[in-house]
Amino acid sequence: MDDTLQFALAPRSVAVIGASDDPNKIGGRPIHYMLRHGFAGRILPVNPSRAKIQGIAAFASLAALPETPELAVIAVAGEAAVEAVEACAKRGVRVAVIIASGFGETGAAGRAIQQAMVTSARAHGMRLVGPNTQGIANFGNGAIANFSTMFGELPPLDGPVAICSQSGGMSQVVYGLVRNRGIGVRHVHATGNEADLTVADFAVACALDPDVRLILLYLESIAEPERLARAAAIARERDVPIVAIKAGRSASGQRAASSHTGALANEDRVVDAFLRRHGIWRARDPHALALAAEAYLKGWRPEGRRLVVISNSGASCVLAADEAEALSLPLAELAPETRAAVAAKLPGFASAANPIDITAALLQNSRLFGDVLPVLAGDPAADLFFIDIPVAGAGYDVDAFARDTAGFAQATGKPVVVAVAQESIRDVFRAAGVVAYADGTDALNALAQLASHTELMRAPAAAWPGPERVSLPEGAGGFLDEAASLAVLEARGLPVVAHRLCRSADEARAAFAAIGGPVAVKACSADVPHKSEHGLVALGVADEAAAIAAFEAQSAKLDAMRASRQGVIVAEMRRGRHEFMVGARIDPVFGPVVLVGDGGRYVEALKDFAILLPPFDAGEVLQALHGLRIAPLFGGLRGEPPMDLEALAAIAVGVGRLLRDAQGSIASIDLNPVIVGAAGEGAVIVDALVERG
Amino acid sequence: MDDTLQFALAPRSVAVIGASDDPNKIGGRPIHYMLRHGFAGRILPVNPSRAKIQGIAAFASLAALPETPELAVIAVAGEAAVEAVEACAKRGVRVAVIIASGFGETGAAGRAIQQAMVTSARAHGMRLVGPNTQGIANFGNGAIANFSTMFGELPPLDGPVAICSQSGGMSQVVYGLVRNRGIGVRHVHATGNEADLTVADFAVACALDPDVRLILLYLESIAEPERLARAAAIARERDVPIVAIKAGRSASGQRAASSHTGALANEDRVVDAFLRRHGIWRARDPHALALAAEAYLKGWRPEGRRLVVISNSGASCVLAADEAEALSLPLAELAPETRAAVAAKLPGFASAANPIDITAALLQNSRLFGDVLPVLAGDPAADLFFIDIPVAGAGYDVDAFARDTAGFAQATGKPVVVAVAQESIRDVFRAAGVVAYADGTDALNALAQLASHTELMRAPAAAWPGPERVSLPEGAGGFLDEAASLAVLEARGLPVVAHRLCRSADEARAAFAAIGGPVAVKACSADVPHKSEHGLVALGVADEAAAIAAFEAQSAKLDAMRASRQGVIVAEMRRGRHEFMVGARIDPVFGPVVLVGDGGRYVEALKDFAILLPPFDAGEVLQALHGLRIAPLFGGLRGEPPMDLEALAAIAVGVGRLLRDAQGSIASIDLNPVIVGAAGEGAVIVDALVERG
Repeated sequence: MDDTLQFALAPRSVAVIGASDDPNKIGGRPIHYMLRHGFAGRILPVNPSRAKIQGIAAFASLAALPETPELAVIAVAGEAAVEAVEACAKRGVRVAVIIASGFGETGAAGRAIQQAMVTSARAHGMRLVGPNTQGIANFGNGAIANFSTMFGELPPLDGPVAICSQSGGMSQVVYGLVRNRGIGVRHVHATGNEADLTVADFAVACALDPDVRLILLYLESIAEPERLARAAAIARERDVPIVAIKAGRSASGQRAASSHTGALANEDRVVDAFLRRHGIWRARDPHALALAAEAYLKGWRPEGRRLVVISNSGASCVLAADEAEALSLPLAELAPETRAAVAAKLPGFASAANPIDITAALLQNSRLFGDVLPVLAGDPAADLFFIDIPVAGAGYDVDAFARDTAGFAQATGKPVVVAVAQESIRDVFRAAGVVAYADGTDALNALAQLASHTELMRAPAAAWPGPERVSLPEGAGGFLDEAASLAVLEARGLPVVAHRLCRSADEARAAFAAIGGPVAVKACSADVPHKSEHGLVALGVADEAAAIAAFEAQSAKLDAMRASRQGVIVAEMRRGRHEFMVGARIDPVFGPVVLVGDGGRYVEALKDFAILLPPFDAGEVLQALHGLRIAPLFGGLRGEPPMDLEALAAIAVGVGRLLRDAQGSIASIDLNPVIVGAAGEGAVIVDALVERG
Repeated sequence: MDDTLQFALAPRSVAVIGASDDPNKIGGRPIHYMLRHGFAGRILPVNPSRAKIQGIAAFASLAALPETPELAVIAVAGEAAVEAVEACAKRGVRVAVIIASGFGETGAAGRAIQQAMVTSARAHGMRLVGPNTQGIANFGNGAIANFSTMFGELPPLDGPVAICSQSGGMSQVVYGLVRNRGIGVRHVHATGNEADLTVADFAVACALDPDVRLILLYLESIAEPERLARAAAIARERDVPIVAIKAGRSASGQRAASSHTGALANEDRVVDAFLRRHGIWRARDPHALALAAEAYLKGWRPEGRRLVVISNSGASCVLAADEAEALSLPLAELAPETRAAVAAKLPGFASAANPIDITAALLQNSRLFGDVLPVLAGDPAADLFFIDIPVAGAGYDVDAFARDTAGFAQATGKPVVVAVAQESIRDVFRAAGVVAYADGTDALNALAQLASHTELMRAPAAAWPGPERVSLPEGAGGFLDEAASLAVLEARGLPVVAHRLCRSADEARAAFAAIGGPVAVKACSADVPHKSEHGLVALGVADEAAAIAAFEAQSAKLDAMRASRQGVIVAEMRRGRHEFMVGARIDPVFGPVVLVGDGGRYVEALKDFAILLPPFDAGEVLQALHGLRIAPLFGGLRGEPPMDLEALAAIAVGVGRLLRDAQGSIASIDLNPVIVGAAGEGAVIVDALVERG
C-alpha cells in the first residue's frame, strides 16, 4: 500500500475536529462508527466546549492533543476548516479528511481557497481527502472517518468489495445495494472535490488489499488517467475486476458535475475507450454497477458466451432468447445425446432444445428439474447457464430446486445464474448459495457483462516498438499544406495516393502524363485546409487540357483568396470498395487518441467511428471496425468482394504510432478519405491534413 | 362486454372437469380460489371417484351435473380433454377453458387435434380458452378458472389493473410485480395456444370494464391485428393506457415462441409500427411492463417533457441529468424568480439551478426539502418532477419529506416521482401516497414513458380520402417493367423523373434531344427487375452518340439474356440533396406497410428506414424521418440548404394510398432512389419497381 494511504486506511490515531456528542451529527458519526466497529487505534475528539464526547475524553484544540494524530477528520465548516487544515499540517498530521463543502465546486474564489489548503498541506507533507466529502472507511479495522448515514442503517459486514467514489451519496447507494445482497464490504471511500487524493489513489490502495476481490468506482471526472491506469493494472494482475460508473456522459450531466464537485468535463467516448483499454467495465448507473457482484465474487471467468436457458415457463424461454440475442449471447447447440437425454426426462410437449422449457408440468412433478440439470452439466457446448423460475410456491419442492441448482453450479464450475421473481423463493435459492436475481433481464445482463468483462480483462495489451523518427517541415503551429501532410505520412511508410505537387502548367502537364488520367487536381495551400468547400478540388479530370485548365483556375482562385500557394496537386484517381476516415488527435486529458470510421463529408454529423487509445494492434482496430454501423458492408454484398480491412487497420496503427512519436509536435491528423480496396488490394490515403502541435 | 365473454368473466356456474380435492393440484386450485374469493355463482366439481371435493358436492360426470354450467374448466389431459370439449359443447356449455398442453405447440398432429376441438366447439356455439393455458380470473366477482400458483402466494386485492397474457407464467409474474407494489388487480387472463379466444378478445372485455384503468398485455403472436386494434380503440376512448410485451423480437425468440404455443412469427419492426399506430406502449420485459403502473393510475397525462430534478446528492443530480438527456427529457429552464427563491432557501454551496442539489446540508436541516418544493410548484416551466433521495435515515425527518412530497404532488397536479434506494424509507413515501422507485433510472424511465405514451395516445389518427382509381396494365403476377411501374405512379400524381421509353435508335435520339443531356439510359424489361446488377444502366450519358450506343448495347444485352424487351428508357439525370428510398408491401398479418429511409444500394444491409402503417399523414412521415440515423443531415451541413422532406413525405403518403387502393392487385412497390432536392425543389422518383399482387 502507498505509504501515505496507510495513514488514511490504517491509522493508529484519528482526531475528529468539531467532534459532536450526537451520533447523528456530521462530527458525531465517525466517532460513533469507530466505537461500534471496534477501531483499535486511538480516537481523539476535539471540541472546545466538552470534556467528553460519546464517552471518550475530548480535547479543547488540536494543540491540546496528547499525541499527533495520523489521521484527522475536519468536521468544521468554512474558515474554521481552512484553519484546521493549516493547524493539522503544522502539527504533523499525515492525512486530513475535509468534510466541509463550499470550496472548489462554487467557482473561482472557492477554487483558490481549496488550492491554498493543498499548498499548506503539501508544505508539511500532509495529504488531503476532500473537501466536500463524506470521508473514508475501512471495515477491516474499523477506521471509519466517514459520516455516512447508511452505515447506521445496515449492519456492517467486512467482505471482499471495495467502493471508491467521488460522491459520498453514491458511495452509500452502492454500499446499500451490495450489502442488501448479503455481500460484505471492506472499503468505502469518498473523495469529494479531489483537491489532492482521488478515487484512483484509493482504488490503488484497494487493489493492493489482498482481501479485496471486486472494486466498484463512481467517477465524475478523470483528471489524471495514469493513476487510474495504475489501479487497473494492479487489479488486473490480481484478477480483481473493476466496474466503474463515469457520470457526466451528457452535456447536461457534465454541467451538473461541475457544480457538484467542480469536476472538469471529459469527452465521453474517449472515457469509454480509456476504460476499455484498461479492462474496466463501465456501468450506467448504481444498479448496473452492483449487478454482477455475486458472479464476479464466485470467481467465474467464463471461456465463452454460449448460453443455455432453462425455465418452467415457455414465455420466460422466449423472452430469454430475445434478450440473449440482443446481448450477443448465442444459444448453445446442445449435443444430440444431451437433447435426447433431456427429452427422455421431460413430458412430450416440453421443449428439449435450448431454451429448455420444462413447462408447468413441474407443478405435477418437482423432480423434473433435478432430473434435467445433471444431463446438461456434462455438455461442453455451454459456457453460461440461465435458469428462470418465474413462479413457484405451494405445490413445488422449492428446497429441492435450490439444492439441485447449487449442486449443478458446483458440478459444472461454470456461471449459473437464476431468476426468481418471488422474493421468498429467491431467498431459498440464495440461502443455498445460488446467484439469484429478481429479474431475468438483469440475470442475463449480468452473465453478458461477466463474459465480456472477462474477455476485456484477458485481452493482451498491445506493445508498440520504440519511437521512430518523425519528419516535420520547419515551422510552428497551424496546418501543414496537403503535400507536406502527405509527405509526413509517406516518410513513415504509410500508403499515400500517387501524386505530384505542381508549381507550373508544365509540371501539371508532366504530372498528368506520368500518373495517367483521370486525375484529381487540388489546390495546395496551408491557408486553406478545407479545399472542397472553396471549390478548389476537381475530380475525374480526364485529359491533359482539362488538367492544365484546373491548375490555372485553382492557382488563380488561391491568389484571389490571398492564400499562400504551395502549388497544385495532381493525383491519381483511386477507386476502391469504400471510403473510410482515420483521424488522430491529442486529448487534453487522455493524450493521443485515434479515430477510425466511415469516411466522407459527414463524419462529424453521423459519428460512425470508433475511438482507440494507444497502444493498440491491428486486431483491436478490426474489432472496433466490426462495431461500426457500416460493418454489414465489409464482407461484400450483392456480389462485391470483401474489403481490405487489414490494410485500413495498419494505417490506423501507423497513425497512432506517428502521433505518439511526434511527442506533441503534431496536434492532429485527419485522413479522409482513406480508400479501401477489395481484400488484398490494400488501402490508400487520398486526402491528408496534419496539424502541428 | 362481448356476449360470449360474459360467460367467461361473469359466469353463473362453473364446472371443473377433473376436479381435485388437493388445492395445489391443477384441478384443485380453481375451486380453492373461487371458494376463497367468494365466487357467488355455483361451483360444480366433476370427478368420478369422489362425492365431495374441497367440501362441495361433486358429480361423476358432466352428464350427471344438475344444471348446464356456463363456464367449464377442463383440467384433464390428452384424449380426455378432447372428449370433455366435445361433451361440454354438446351439453351447452358457453365457454370452456382447456388447461392441458400437448396440442398446437407440438406440431402438425397436435394442431389438427386442436383445430378439431375448435370445430366441435363452434358447431355448438361454445368458445374456447386455450388449450395449454393457465386459465382466466376475475377478482371483481371471484370467477377464477385459473390454476395460478401466485394467487395463493399473494393476498388478492381487486383493483384497476387488467392483465391479459398468452402465457400463464408471465401473467403470474406481472401479477406479482403489480401486487407487490400494493396495486390491486381485477383481471388475470391467460390464453395459451389461442385456438379460439385471444389476448385481444380479453383486452376488449377488460377495456369495457368501467373499473379497469390500466391494461397490461403479454403477446407472443399477433394473428388477427384488427381484434387488438379494437381493444386499443376502446381503451383509448376511455383514456385507459395499454402497455404490451410482444415477445419474439429476435429470430431465436420466435423459434422459442413457436415451440411454446405454436405461435406464428410476426415481423418485429412491423409489430412496433402497429402498436405505435394504436397507441399501445411496447415494453421490453415484465419489469418494464409494470414500471409506470402507479404513474398511469394517478391519472397523470403530462403536457410535455420538461423535467425538474431535485436531490440531496450531487451525484444523483449528475446521473439524472445524463439519463434525462438519454431519454430526451430536457431539463426545464426555471424562471429567474424561481431560481432566486430556491437559492434563498439553500446554503450557498448548493445548486439552485436545475438539477437542484440540496446537498448533504439536508442532514443538518431537514426543512430544506419542504422549503424548496413549494417554490417549484408555481413555476410553469416544468412538466415532470423527479426527486432522488438516495440516502436518508437517522438524523433526517423522513416523515416530513414524504408529507412534503405528497403535498407538492397534490399542489402541482403534475407527475412527481421519487427514487429512494432504501426500502424502509421508500415505504414511508409510498405510505404517504407518493410514487416511489428504488432506482433513479427506473423512475426517469417511467416519467419518459408516461410522457411519450401520453403523446402517442393523444396523437390524432390520420384519415385518408376514399379510394381512387389504380391503373395497372393487363396481366397477372410478377414485376412490372420500369416504364410501366413509373406509369402507375405517374397516373396517381406522384412525381416521376422525366423519361421516355424508346423502342428504336431514332426514338432514343429524339428522347435525348427532348430531355437534354446528360441522361440515364436503362434497359426496360419485366424479366430483369434489378438492372444495375446486369450492367443494364448507363448514367451521365452526355451526348447523343453515346445515348444511341447505350441503347444499342442494352438492347443487345437483353436479347442475349433472352429477356423480354419493352425498350430502353432515356431519362433525365436528376441531382438533389440526398437519395432516399420509399417502399411498400403487404405484410401477411398487418396488411399494407410503407417504408421510408436512406436510399442506395445497401438499404437492406444498413436498415436505416422507418415503417409506417396506413393511414398516416405527412406529419407522421416527417416524425419518422427524424428518427433515422441520417436525420442530422436533413437541415443542411457545411453550407448546404435543408432538404425538401415535405415532398418526400407526400410521396410516402401517396405510395401508402396507392397500395391500399390497389386492394391486393399490387404486392409491393420499391422506389429507390427518390431524389430529394433542397427545400422547395421537391422530390422525384427516379427508379421504380411495382410488383403485382
